[in-house]
Amino acid sequence: MTNDPTSVATSDPAILMIANSETDSNLYYATKFLAPDPFIFFQINGHKTVVMSDLELDRAKAQGRVDEILSYSAIENQLKSEGLNEPRTVDVIDACLKSRGAKRLLVPGEFGFRHAEALRAKGYSLTTKAEPFFEERVLKFPEEIEAITQTQRATETAVEAAIEVIRESKIKKDELHWDGGVLTAESIKKIINVKLMELDCVAQHTIVACGIQGCDPHDEGSGPLRPHQSIVMDVFPRSGKTRYYADMTRTVVKGRAPDSLRTMYDTVRRAQEEGISMVRDGVEGRTIHERIMTIFDQAGYPTGPKDGRMQGFFHGTGHGVGLDIHEPPRISKAPWTLKAGEVVTVEPGLYYPEIGAVRIEDLVVVTEHGCENLTRSPKVLEL
Amino acid sequence: MTNDPTSVATSDPAILMIANSETDSNLYYATKFLAPDPFIFFQINGHKTVVMSDLELDRAKAQGRVDEILSYSAIENQLKSEGLNEPRTVDVIDACLKSRGAKRLLVPGEFGFRHAEALRAKGYSLTTKAEPFFEERVLKFPEEIEAITQTQRATETAVEAAIEVIRESKIKKDELHWDGGVLTAESIKKIINVKLMELDCVAQHTIVACGIQGCDPHDEGSGPLRPHQSIVMDVFPRSGKTRYYADMTRTVVKGRAPDSLRTMYDTVRRAQEEGISMVRDGVEGRTIHERIMTIFDQAGYPTGPKDGRMQGFFHGTGHGVGLDIHEPPRISKAPWTLKAGEVVTVEPGLYYPEIGAVRIEDLVVVTEHGCENLTRSPKVLEL
Repeated sequence: MTNDPTSVATSDPAILMIANSETDSNLYYATKFLAPDPFIFFQINGHKTVVMSDLELDRAKAQGRVDEILSYSAIENQLKSEGLNEPRTVDVIDACLKSRGAKRLLVPGEFGFRHAEALRAKGYSLTTKAEPFFEERVLKFPEEIEAITQTQRATETAVEAAIEVIRESKIKKDELHWDGGVLTAESIKKIINVKLMELDCVAQHTIVACGIQGCDPHDEGSGPLRPHQSIVMDVFPRSGKTRYYADMTRTVVKGRAPDSLRTMYDTVRRAQEEGISMVRDGVEGRTIHERIMTIFDQAGYPTGPKDGRMQGFFHGTGHGVGLDIHEPPRISKAPWTLKAGEVVTVEPGLYYPEIGAVRIEDLVVVTEHGCENLTRSPKVLEL
Repeated sequence: MTNDPTSVATSDPAILMIANSETDSNLYYATKFLAPDPFIFFQINGHKTVVMSDLELDRAKAQGRVDEILSYSAIENQLKSEGLNEPRTVDVIDACLKSRGAKRLLVPGEFGFRHAEALRAKGYSLTTKAEPFFEERVLKFPEEIEAITQTQRATETAVEAAIEVIRESKIKKDELHWDGGVLTAESIKKIINVKLMELDCVAQHTIVACGIQGCDPHDEGSGPLRPHQSIVMDVFPRSGKTRYYADMTRTVVKGRAPDSLRTMYDTVRRAQEEGISMVRDGVEGRTIHERIMTIFDQAGYPTGPKDGRMQGFFHGTGHGVGLDIHEPPRISKAPWTLKAGEVVTVEPGLYYPEIGAVRIEDLVVVTEHGCENLTRSPKVLEL
């Protein structure tokens, strides 16, 4: 937040991003242009400009939703003709911004340190703001909700295929058998991921975690699936067409759930239903999260480290879903007032090595007086 | 680049990263731990430490290849007990680094501006270095080459499946037909991507671009495939198991390639073979790239803007492949001396709307006296 006494601009600072829009969703949101290598974007008084390599120039012209597309190599050549030997990215940016009178820049928190340093050395002042960098990104347009819903439908189809296989499997001693062999977490993950790819959705890190594996909420699971134990399936693909994610978790048991597991399942389900019933415009996310913590505490499910590991409910209740799988808002101990148009998960869970793991997750849209649940999959414990 | 006169440390600066290791490959390389949300990593005199949320703490203990795993919430609670009301990430980092006497920090170029500012405000000095941040990441260990080779094999299997379908398709007027309908770019992409998912590899942005679509090298392609036209297939999946990428491009024609296209194909193939023959320890990437440019120029294939679009050969000859699909080194106009152990693509291409597009890409390992081609797929134009 260097003060730049030479700046005479009276308008808002120019927004500047340098990133690859396949991993940086803010840049994709701003340009609707997907590129695997970093490119320059700036926005001055609402006017959007990108500076593209020769490789991407024509595709950007065809696909990018911006006001102006400049050629990086043309600017580079201009600078060379003016005597600059090896123009750097920052020289190209400077050439663009100088002529437009922009000296004050607003950059995302993730903006790279190296470019920030180089810009400062050229006399630019940089400021940042906390996420959401584009506040409107949190509030979904109807077409964004439709895109998320379509990814959610594909997710449900894939999870249903997995549940069907577990339902059809046979219990042999302490293993599940299917299609002539042992049914493993890997085979169920493959059924889910291949089905999603058939539906143009890309699933990575799909979780199929049985018994104690599920007690580590991000353990992806491996090896034989066991009867009478919890199987947590958490599936969160991205649409290859729209780029929007969905997210859903179901917990099932093949065979008979022990009473302790069934009671825990019923508690999580009740907490999730109460959480969903509290979602509405204006409610504090923290209030929902604390209510779920209280339900668990009062039902005799304490949270904290025990026997050298975390037990109970030790993650947030929910997170925003959109162009990123984890984006604002959060329903957690952090402050956030929910607003109509936000899309969030509600996913309480309980994890005790001696009982197993239960997590149930739906995806909802916050509305003025409540929420709309985008999730259609049934919640059935025993298969 | 800030000088910090209060620093008395005489050792190397501490390496600091704050990122999510699913998208930041440097962080994954340093920790071998995959997490979808940002976490803190620092390394002081070779000693590696991560600071994890409660959610990831136990999994990090089981999977992370680091020397020390700290609990974010434990440090947060300690700071609260010392009177700090709402500790921020930077306070947690400060608590860790202060007690270890680290005041000078080395961060990647991509290190986030927001955290950099907050650390400076606390008196830390930050420096950065150009990529490769970890120089050893460029030189692949045998197990890394094996991982890349396995992904390459899967890529070849998927491309072979696609080629088989194109070979079996029937020409009906100006379309290809297969399985009772029009054969489209989308259906070939799905065959490739689903096959790769069955082989535990995740393909995104697979290119199947026919005719003029291929003249935009990153156009992913859409609609009916046409006979007697170039079909560029560029496939670059990541292994879901090892995280290592592979990359391959083949250009085919269903039916008969016009003479102009065949001549162009032969020229690209000859240029590619010459490029591969030049790869060896100690050669300048720029020398290879310029040689290919010369071959194309001399064969009558000029490069530059024409009729409002780029034509000829307007991308680099190759790039490194590893935990990122595009990583150092580059074989391009930029300076880089190739070293034994690097894994690079060699992928010249020519693009003229009136003829079509040809790109041929293999993946090779630089060796002391030449290179080893990791690619086994045949190069056949007409199917």
